[in-house]
Amino acid sequence: MIEWKNFDSLESYGELAKAECVKLAEVMSGESGAERVKAYSVPMAAGMVYNYAAKQVDENVLAVLKKLAKEAQLSEKYKALYNGEMINTGEKRLVLHQLTRGQLGDKVVADGTDKRAFYVEQQERIAEFAKKVHSGEITNAAGEKFTTVVQIGIGGSDLGPRAMYLALENWAKKHNTFKMEAKFISNVDPDDAAAVLGSIDVAHSMFVLVSKSGTTLETLTNESFVKDALKKAGLDASKHMVAVTSETSPLAKSDDYLAAFFMDDYIGGRFSSTSAVGGAVLSLAFGPEVFAQFLEGAAEEDKLAAKEDLLQNPDMLDALIGVYERNMLGYPATAVLPYSQALSRFPAHLQQADMESNGKSVNRFGEPVNYVTGPVLFGEPGTNGQHSFYQLLHQGTDIVPIQFVGFKNSQIGTDVVIEDSTSQQKLCANVAAQIVAFACGKDDENLNKKFEGGRPSSIIIGEQLNPKALGALLAHFENKIMFQGFVWNVNSFDQEGVQLGKVLAKRVLAHETDGALQVYSELLNI
Amino acid sequence: MIEWKNFDSLESYGELAKAECVKLAEVMSGESGAERVKAYSVPMAAGMVYNYAAKQVDENVLAVLKKLAKEAQLSEKYKALYNGEMINTGEKRLVLHQLTRGQLGDKVVADGTDKRAFYVEQQERIAEFAKKVHSGEITNAAGEKFTTVVQIGIGGSDLGPRAMYLALENWAKKHNTFKMEAKFISNVDPDDAAAVLGSIDVAHSMFVLVSKSGTTLETLTNESFVKDALKKAGLDASKHMVAVTSETSPLAKSDDYLAAFFMDDYIGGRFSSTSAVGGAVLSLAFGPEVFAQFLEGAAEEDKLAAKEDLLQNPDMLDALIGVYERNMLGYPATAVLPYSQALSRFPAHLQQADMESNGKSVNRFGEPVNYVTGPVLFGEPGTNGQHSFYQLLHQGTDIVPIQFVGFKNSQIGTDVVIEDSTSQQKLCANVAAQIVAFACGKDDENLNKKFEGGRPSSIIIGEQLNPKALGALLAHFENKIMFQGFVWNVNSFDQEGVQLGKVLAKRVLAHETDGALQVYSELLNI
Repeated sequence: MIEWKNFDSLESYGELAKAECVKLAEVMSGESGAERVKAYSVPMAAGMVYNYAAKQVDENVLAVLKKLAKEAQLSEKYKALYNGEMINTGEKRLVLHQLTRGQLGDKVVADGTDKRAFYVEQQERIAEFAKKVHSGEITNAAGEKFTTVVQIGIGGSDLGPRAMYLALENWAKKHNTFKMEAKFISNVDPDDAAAVLGSIDVAHSMFVLVSKSGTTLETLTNESFVKDALKKAGLDASKHMVAVTSETSPLAKSDDYLAAFFMDDYIGGRFSSTSAVGGAVLSLAFGPEVFAQFLEGAAEEDKLAAKEDLLQNPDMLDALIGVYERNMLGYPATAVLPYSQALSRFPAHLQQADMESNGKSVNRFGEPVNYVTGPVLFGEPGTNGQHSFYQLLHQGTDIVPIQFVGFKNSQIGTDVVIEDSTSQQKLCANVAAQIVAFACGKDDENLNKKFEGGRPSSIIIGEQLNPKALGALLAHFENKIMFQGFVWNVNSFDQEGVQLGKVLAKRVLAHETDGALQVYSELLNI
Repeated sequence: MIEWKNFDSLESYGELAKAECVKLAEVMSGESGAERVKAYSVPMAAGMVYNYAAKQVDENVLAVLKKLAKEAQLSEKYKALYNGEMINTGEKRLVLHQLTRGQLGDKVVADGTDKRAFYVEQQERIAEFAKKVHSGEITNAAGEKFTTVVQIGIGGSDLGPRAMYLALENWAKKHNTFKMEAKFISNVDPDDAAAVLGSIDVAHSMFVLVSKSGTTLETLTNESFVKDALKKAGLDASKHMVAVTSETSPLAKSDDYLAAFFMDDYIGGRFSSTSAVGGAVLSLAFGPEVFAQFLEGAAEEDKLAAKEDLLQNPDMLDALIGVYERNMLGYPATAVLPYSQALSRFPAHLQQADMESNGKSVNRFGEPVNYVTGPVLFGEPGTNGQHSFYQLLHQGTDIVPIQFVGFKNSQIGTDVVIEDSTSQQKLCANVAAQIVAFACGKDDENLNKKFEGGRPSSIIIGEQLNPKALGALLAHFENKIMFQGFVWNVNSFDQEGVQLGKVLAKRVLAHETDGALQVYSELLNI
């Protein structure tokens, strides 16, 4: 029997508050440090590992976290979720993004449909469509192949798919599965659409309009923008556009689109990269086989997340260490720092996935909670960040826990040897060095050159950023967010906090304002 | 007589701690809210305004901030800086980035040179060079014009120039001053250089190598990467490369470069966008006139920063409100949210400028401080962010102060009317709505739909993001950071916190490690 209890009502909450955190500079030094790095490691999917040796935990803290996992019924709640219980209680919806990439439990039927079959069907329809576009069976009016795919969407319909595209672009080129260049239009700023349209050959471009409801203001506005451009170029817009939407949306059966692929209310935008939202653009860009491998990696990681033993469950473990850092050690922000240029927009995607899911002040029953919930999340790729904000991470007055990601091999494979090492070796040497620098610090008589150490980080290490590894990485963070939401007892799957701004913006545009809003409107010349 | 005192040793520190912050939801409501928006506004350069009506300050708090400005001798310290006193005491260097765009005070002589004359000379040399490239007087070996410029640099040699390039790319295209496409190689990840090289026509590309010392590992590695590619293409690298470096660096007089342009030790990387570091790539991309306008905007803002009246000084006022929020109200992070897609990388640049400058735990004498200093800074353009992390900003358990930026007009001017408003109007309506939503909130019986309000923001409003406005915007934030550093009594112009990681990385590459570092090296296959 699942019980949804506030974090601070659990016994383990009090125990965790009392558990002393380890002195990283000590435990990470010398031979004990070496042993720790070897021991504090959990396998992830796609041959990756999650290593948490440089986190401020020890057997004692881990024992309390184990108890917390049990008390908070994390495994049971995950099981309930993938078996189709209504976990998004606020909006009275199931939460089924894991089902887009595999079936972990019971058959899930909703709206009279087997949902796994539905998601697979959409994936197959997209695959078939993409193959026809690639083979030239579907062409523009002049009978020429499409060379570019442009995603029109915002938030979850933009950040995730864009981050995934960038993550695999070079890999696909190297592996000869690169089919079409992808571009993205998201912002209602007219310069966003105008700039993208100015950079492509519209006659050979396929546009993917993504809006679950079919009513997202930014997306519909940008669609009109694109249709105008197509018309001006003498083209028939309906021969250049597909829709990704829900079956009940006005876009679903419109003649305005070559085809429509479906998602549903059980997939939140920020969790939709493995649904048709990511599927259409990624299958068109890289071919459906690459997208299938991406799903495979995610499914494999989802399976690991179901392990009840905390120490064998990298997603749950990462989640609980994060809770310990946030609620007991009081760290207000988290940095995600991938040592991979291809993951340049991965932190921006996680920023949405994490902050939109767990940036809540009330529990799932609408009652205020008495503890902090989701942290601020930010990040940029290393080594770039080292020459930027790492100063504060090393010597600032606040401690910022870090999540590193590194791969043994590059994607393209072209490299150069300078001073006896390749660029790839330099990249990896830097991330290894940073973990130890943050954890152990360095004494110096000149306090300006002293490093306190004691700054926690973990690292995910993989062989190479390929489609499967990317899927696993994405699912890892999605599952981490889910488990943290369970501990905090918040509904991680709604986003009521985005509504008020929309309402007020409409009021401004209708000129129905007064007071401060009216003066701001005048200052901005609306 | 200037005295460098810790913030908490000032009388105004105690007064500020006692000053009650205003209840935003109250003061921003109704007619008083309208009055407040009209009153709490300061002119900036380039016709912009800084509006702080939605910050938690009132006449009382502002009076204490005025006292703080006096007590901390902010104007005197700025004057000392631009008159050439050694403000970067740790590294025993002058701090002269303002001098790259104007002369506010005395002639500054260092190393036997009039520094203003030196910076102007470099600007003119770059202008002359750029004109020759544009006119075809300087060409590749085949006598063909260069079409692309590629900046090779990291940290301050990358983030600032890249953000400025993206900010003006569309403007320049619209105003027919767009000369060359720019690309950037920064990361030591070999895939970064390989991907950029794969996307350009190297035979028509000019590379700008930027390294003050001429020893930055990432940059020299990427230079070799590029030279390899040029060689493989049968090209003479020295006909495709220029250097931006200090006169004493090994790059300064090398035959490997077509030309070398100079910066010096008095310009920190993160403050170098207005020096040759930004000058070369921006002048080649947009023409020297555009770069000159950019400098003009910055110089105009620097002048405003010298105003002694806090309420007439937008940079100092923004700085002190930030200090109030950080030290007295206890907010650990700040979001910069430009409602302009062209400013997509501006927050990443500010992230470096701010966090690397003021993420310090010791004062300028190397003594630990007993108060928090620089906050975590992050941001993405609106309206994109609204569909991403704004949930946490509206309803999360921590309050995150916000800095909005908005422009009345778009850069390209192409627009579309949907539901009686243009995209540009929608963009502006959204930022106006967000300010009021954050400040005033909205009650609701369902606490999940309730907005507490009381979340502070300010907004900078301009006519259009043009070169002059961009310069003013950049200088505003640079000056804000400088003033905050003065209050916190830290040295904002060194970055000792980045050293340890470099040292340890070298040790890894030399295989001179043991303990934890050795095991991480093995895990990463180095």
